[in-house]
Amino acid sequence: MEEREISQAVIGRLPRYYRYLGELLSNGVERISSSDLSKRMHVTASQIRQDLNNFGGFGQQGYGYNVKYLHTEIGKILGLNVNRNFVIIGAGNLGQALANYAGFERSGFILKGIFDVNPRLEGVSIRGIPIRMMDDLKAFIMENNIEIAVLTIPKTKAAEVAQMLADTNIKGIWNFAPTDLHLPKEVVVENVHLAESLMRLSYKVERYNEEHME
Amino acid sequence: MEEREISQAVIGRLPRYYRYLGELLSNGVERISSSDLSKRMHVTASQIRQDLNNFGGFGQQGYGYNVKYLHTEIGKILGLNVNRNFVIIGAGNLGQALANYAGFERSGFILKGIFDVNPRLEGVSIRGIPIRMMDDLKAFIMENNIEIAVLTIPKTKAAEVAQMLADTNIKGIWNFAPTDLHLPKEVVVENVHLAESLMRLSYKVERYNEEHME
Repeated sequence: MEEREISQAVIGRLPRYYRYLGELLSNGVERISSSDLSKRMHVTASQIRQDLNNFGGFGQQGYGYNVKYLHTEIGKILGLNVNRNFVIIGAGNLGQALANYAGFERSGFILKGIFDVNPRLEGVSIRGIPIRMMDDLKAFIMENNIEIAVLTIPKTKAAEVAQMLADTNIKGIWNFAPTDLHLPKEVVVENVHLAESLMRLSYKVERYNEEHME
Repeated sequence: MEEREISQAVIGRLPRYYRYLGELLSNGVERISSSDLSKRMHVTASQIRQDLNNFGGFGQQGYGYNVKYLHTEIGKILGLNVNRNFVIIGAGNLGQALANYAGFERSGFILKGIFDVNPRLEGVSIRGIPIRMMDDLKAFIMENNIEIAVLTIPKTKAAEVAQMLADTNIKGIWNFAPTDLHLPKEVVVENVHLAESLMRLSYKVERYNEEHME
């Protein structure tokens, strides 16, 4: 594919295209028109054409999009064409739930280790992966080519652990702790602030109520 | 507070302000200047002044913001000044992790019930709340004034369950199933698509790598 600048707005929509194309693919669909995809995704066909033009994944007029080609190209843009090793730090309820989710592996994210400070969890296994103590984290990251750390620890510990991670080769942090991390730019962060998401839902509920009680 | 139109962009930032103001409040801080808040939040002071001007929560020049007042006002906008009952549907790992998180209660979200289809989970309690079977869901929602349902079920079941919820009094769905729900507009939806969040992280890692290998 040609090198080309793709806007942030388009990038933000790619995971959703990737998901829909993946579903089509597993349903055996080989090609789809922008108007059919538009109906499925509840997005205008013109938006879809504009977005997907970035990837050149459209054939002749009337042919539609080649599903497999587009899925592959978008996967490459998202960096999903290579495997990435990750560790989960914090084996509480949320950490264990994420550790038990096998779906990440299908996108190339390979869980290599789980870490906690609680000595009672030491050696307990989740999907065959033993929980290790935090003292071993740094060496483990170095020795196992870990690119991503998932932080499912209390916010009071998050800054300190993130700082420790910044001193390793780690490239990205998927942060579930309800706090903002301030790290050198070579460590990228993606936040999942669940409490804030719930507040946005609450806002929508409240606003809908107000508008329909007047 | 005066009625006033607040832009969607400002609304999107409110949960973060709410979180920072809440932290200041629990640290006993009564007022804060826009420049101090700017340093903490890593946002420009001018952005903060523009955003918070919407709430009139600023006193005289040199006084700074009244932390408690602003926290309360933003909480009202977000609908956090009232309690909302919710149920969790899907008592798998993620559903149980969310059920175990007591933090939601502090924002007024009260967990009333947990539902699943697995008969082996029937009667098992999480934080004193017994897991119930799906057959009882509709009646439970009606009888317990449930406003919000959290969906932590596989995507293959999500559309059907969401449709069933749309026939009750439910007002909002916090959807963790990796699929889009298409519901009547009186049921608002907030999605948490974890796989897509992980893809955004992957994109950032990939892009940083590319830029620094050339």
